[in-house]
Amino acid sequence: MATALQAGVDLANICSGKGYCGKCLVEVVEGVSNLSPPTELELKRIQPEKISKGFRLACQSKVRGNVILKVPDQSRVGRQKLVIMGKEPPVVVKSNIRKIFLELQPPTLLKPIADDENLLSALALKGDENLRLNYTTVKKIPRVLRESGWKVTMTLLGENDVIDIQPGDTSKNSFGVAVDVGTTKLAVFIADLTDGGLVFADGVMNPQIKFGEDVISRINYSTHGEYQLRELQNTIIEGINELIDKGLSETGINRDELYELVCVGNTAMHHLFMGIDCKNLGLSPYPASMGKAYDLTAHEMGLGINPSGNVHTLPNVAGFVGADAIADILACRLHEKEKLSLLMDVGTNTEVMLGNKEGIWSCSTASGPAFEGAHIRHGMRAASGAIERVKIVHPLDIECKIIDDEKARGICGSGIIDAIAEMLKNGIMDTSGRILEGPRVREGNNGREFILVTREETASGQEEIVVTQDDIREIQKAKAAMYAGYMTLMKKSNSTQKSLSEIIIAGAFGTYIDPESARIIGMIPEMPLERISFTGNTAGSGARICLKSIECRKEAQAIASKIRYVELAAEQVFLEEYINAMYMPNSKLEDFPETVNIIKAPKVVKRYVKR
Amino acid sequence: MATALQAGVDLANICSGKGYCGKCLVEVVEGVSNLSPPTELELKRIQPEKISKGFRLACQSKVRGNVILKVPDQSRVGRQKLVIMGKEPPVVVKSNIRKIFLELQPPTLLKPIADDENLLSALALKGDENLRLNYTTVKKIPRVLRESGWKVTMTLLGENDVIDIQPGDTSKNSFGVAVDVGTTKLAVFIADLTDGGLVFADGVMNPQIKFGEDVISRINYSTHGEYQLRELQNTIIEGINELIDKGLSETGINRDELYELVCVGNTAMHHLFMGIDCKNLGLSPYPASMGKAYDLTAHEMGLGINPSGNVHTLPNVAGFVGADAIADILACRLHEKEKLSLLMDVGTNTEVMLGNKEGIWSCSTASGPAFEGAHIRHGMRAASGAIERVKIVHPLDIECKIIDDEKARGICGSGIIDAIAEMLKNGIMDTSGRILEGPRVREGNNGREFILVTREETASGQEEIVVTQDDIREIQKAKAAMYAGYMTLMKKSNSTQKSLSEIIIAGAFGTYIDPESARIIGMIPEMPLERISFTGNTAGSGARICLKSIECRKEAQAIASKIRYVELAAEQVFLEEYINAMYMPNSKLEDFPETVNIIKAPKVVKRYVKR
Repeated sequence: MATALQAGVDLANICSGKGYCGKCLVEVVEGVSNLSPPTELELKRIQPEKISKGFRLACQSKVRGNVILKVPDQSRVGRQKLVIMGKEPPVVVKSNIRKIFLELQPPTLLKPIADDENLLSALALKGDENLRLNYTTVKKIPRVLRESGWKVTMTLLGENDVIDIQPGDTSKNSFGVAVDVGTTKLAVFIADLTDGGLVFADGVMNPQIKFGEDVISRINYSTHGEYQLRELQNTIIEGINELIDKGLSETGINRDELYELVCVGNTAMHHLFMGIDCKNLGLSPYPASMGKAYDLTAHEMGLGINPSGNVHTLPNVAGFVGADAIADILACRLHEKEKLSLLMDVGTNTEVMLGNKEGIWSCSTASGPAFEGAHIRHGMRAASGAIERVKIVHPLDIECKIIDDEKARGICGSGIIDAIAEMLKNGIMDTSGRILEGPRVREGNNGREFILVTREETASGQEEIVVTQDDIREIQKAKAAMYAGYMTLMKKSNSTQKSLSEIIIAGAFGTYIDPESARIIGMIPEMPLERISFTGNTAGSGARICLKSIECRKEAQAIASKIRYVELAAEQVFLEEYINAMYMPNSKLEDFPETVNIIKAPKVVKRYVKR
Repeated sequence: MATALQAGVDLANICSGKGYCGKCLVEVVEGVSNLSPPTELELKRIQPEKISKGFRLACQSKVRGNVILKVPDQSRVGRQKLVIMGKEPPVVVKSNIRKIFLELQPPTLLKPIADDENLLSALALKGDENLRLNYTTVKKIPRVLRESGWKVTMTLLGENDVIDIQPGDTSKNSFGVAVDVGTTKLAVFIADLTDGGLVFADGVMNPQIKFGEDVISRINYSTHGEYQLRELQNTIIEGINELIDKGLSETGINRDELYELVCVGNTAMHHLFMGIDCKNLGLSPYPASMGKAYDLTAHEMGLGINPSGNVHTLPNVAGFVGADAIADILACRLHEKEKLSLLMDVGTNTEVMLGNKEGIWSCSTASGPAFEGAHIRHGMRAASGAIERVKIVHPLDIECKIIDDEKARGICGSGIIDAIAEMLKNGIMDTSGRILEGPRVREGNNGREFILVTREETASGQEEIVVTQDDIREIQKAKAAMYAGYMTLMKKSNSTQKSLSEIIIAGAFGTYIDPESARIIGMIPEMPLERISFTGNTAGSGARICLKSIECRKEAQAIASKIRYVELAAEQVFLEEYINAMYMPNSKLEDFPETVNIIKAPKVVKRYVKR
């Protein structure tokens, strides 16, 4: 694997080379003898007939000489796939599912013990007492006991529930699903519950997008009636089921051996996943309907795992700070930090969390879909052909890095932030965000436009790729909301700017932001670059660690019950800071001393003044 | 009520005049002013428009002068109805269901508390913590809270589960269903869970009878496949649902306010009700599939109560001593007796229980359907026209009591026992059961027949009603099995005949047996008549008290775990005693000294001798 990655081969590496995911399958075309023999993990994850044809896991094979490999398409990363992954802290696996193999004595005339009592006393001998057998299990018991010659494996959920019986010893086969329902993306992960290994990860666009791009439009759609609410719920459940189906067919796992599903999402996505009325999320005072963690049965929800499997949802903090924020905190360990840290999950809504082990304050800001490329003239998602990096060496000399090194098709979120920061640095616009006259600037139908890529250099060859005045306004509103959210929490928690020691940017989009650009436009407070980190989709990571460890679920509950939520609509300070933050980096320049030195843009700053 | 009963009026009296059941509804035609004014209970149980038309509950109205009443058909007992009732010990009502009325504070911008947390903290203030909201409730919460102006009633099941939310204060509306699934009869009771009052009781033939009359034929049918097992289950569930529907329409109770259903039955009926494979009940060593008590959800079972309601089944002792036997013990308080007592639930199978507070032994005997009138030439169920009492004054002078004083149509179980006892007393047959030559005895196609009712005296006028030699053999086998079961338990428990202090005959059929006749034919041990009691359908009584009191459920569990089951197939002593008991009263005459003095039949007794 290391050899392949060094050679720049596009090879999937979901489990970081641990051999769990089986994603880095390669076909050895020549030089089999120059490879180490297949490891135990390879024998577990690759079908025997494939091994004999020369298929290997790159992460498990050591190269001792020349080898020619073929990388099948399904083992290539593909840029879009990666955005579902995020930093994951190590956790001790402590699954909510336990499987216990039993060898029973059949009943006799002198001891005609009932089947259920026979099972329960064998389990009691192994230390599990006060168990409840669920209805599905009870119905299967007499047949499975006899067909298996009284050798069976029982599946236990939590402390007290028996949810399945299988013939023979299947105690090693135990899998679970972690789901992150984002407003824009849906990610599904399958993990081995015995060792915590990730065996499948995939994401698609949230299929609810047809009902509206942002949270509010979906909430509005759901309020049309019970039918529409069910439609939204069914759409997301079907989306999850399709990814599960894909995971089962790729891994060969038996559906009935997926015993748990842990789901996170923002409060609206959580409620729509659960089919819960979320009308009130859109009405002041924006209360969540469900704040607690829940454990439901898969068949109640129509999810494609074992019908008796457990569906766990993490708690929500408020109407706009949901289970995904709790997952972020868990994955980034914000609740264990010694010093004051800022965690922002940047998305269509950005959740802002400020705190450390002493306590956490949170709020949510409607940053809008601009970072995802929406509402931007040439905006697009981070896919092949998107400008992801911009460097203005001189207004007439612009360097653009384009995903997959293709010709430019548009600009994605990280690219537009770069472009605006560079325009600011180079005096192409003023600190109020107004594009100034100059080279590559032209008058468009809605104000000035800055030409980033000339027509000839684009993929289509039809139209220049530009940054418009309206594009800049969109980004200003988005970044101002985020920064004002942060400042509001600083004031509510009586913290000083100096005490802030670390900034963590979570969210799939965040992975690609240039921290310097973000700092220059004032999206985040000024901070040495080495103390700004990007953790990717930590909502998904939080879901995965909660799937693997019930201790993490307890932590999630503890975080939810302690976190202090600030409703920005009730805070005058938010409005003040929002207006200040519409400037770039901000109208309070004293908070951005270094940035002030970098930018060449004319300063047009009006401070918000209380009347 | 007392006045009506004294006057011989056929008037329902299910709740023993407590005013709960509303069954003794009468219409006052004349003399309203001679009645006491309507009581609170009457106002609760009778619709207001009926009260104004002069409808009253007989049990609540005191008569102070002449009154003319009309008894509507539905308030008449009807002979068949009564057989579902049985003796019920008083219990302190402690329902598994609690309803709690809450007045909540709506969320505000400064405290935008989630709906579920709002509810749960209000419940915690009332002392209920660590509650789980079920999925159905969670889905209703946001709407019901707002539509009700934040005044709602929560329904709690057990210690930790919230299963419903309703607008307003409905805390007084809480009902449950007790079900006794007999092989022959199905009885359904509805009780008020707030005060324990019985508000509805009805029974029908078990609709599974079309699949076979006895337990074994139904087990055989179920083994044909999954479809047949489901067919049997659906048939009984539909039968129960039809009676529930009838109860709801008669009482005006809301289906969603039926929160629990407690079911008893013999092990086979229990398993078929649950849809559990019961093939093994018919195969040595006859183990039950389910021995434990279960709590399931109504919608899983398709039962017509609140879909989130709880279905509780009592534990089974063994393949042929089921939850109904536990219910009998509970209702008859066998587990609290100081002295050794015998409890027999007489039916197609007769469960025999022997013991006291020190311990209980049990077994089951296949007594067959003879007592229900089956396999008897002129046998019929205890309905209008059935001979229920027989007295032979002289072979030429026979007195028969016929149900409803109609002309005889046949003979029911109590009548045939009387007839055989009288034939024995009058020397019409010998102690081996052989009919002797004499008056009213004729040769039939299958041996001799004793003419009980001449052709002219029957309802049809077509054919004499006779007791055949085969009829006597059927009764001999049935009573021998019961007595041998009792004797086996006596030997297993090392008890002496003298220590037996009481005989309790349970079962609908038992209600009508003449204890002297039963003793004469040797169906039960010899015992002074005042120490033989008949308690009726105590399986139903046990189900009812377990519905009303969770303490009774704990008692049931304790009984089930302590009771000692004897599998008669493994006992040589059973076979010996069965052969002895084929004689009447028995070949061991020393155990029946008084009976020996009464009977005039020639003694033809061969004692079973071990070889």
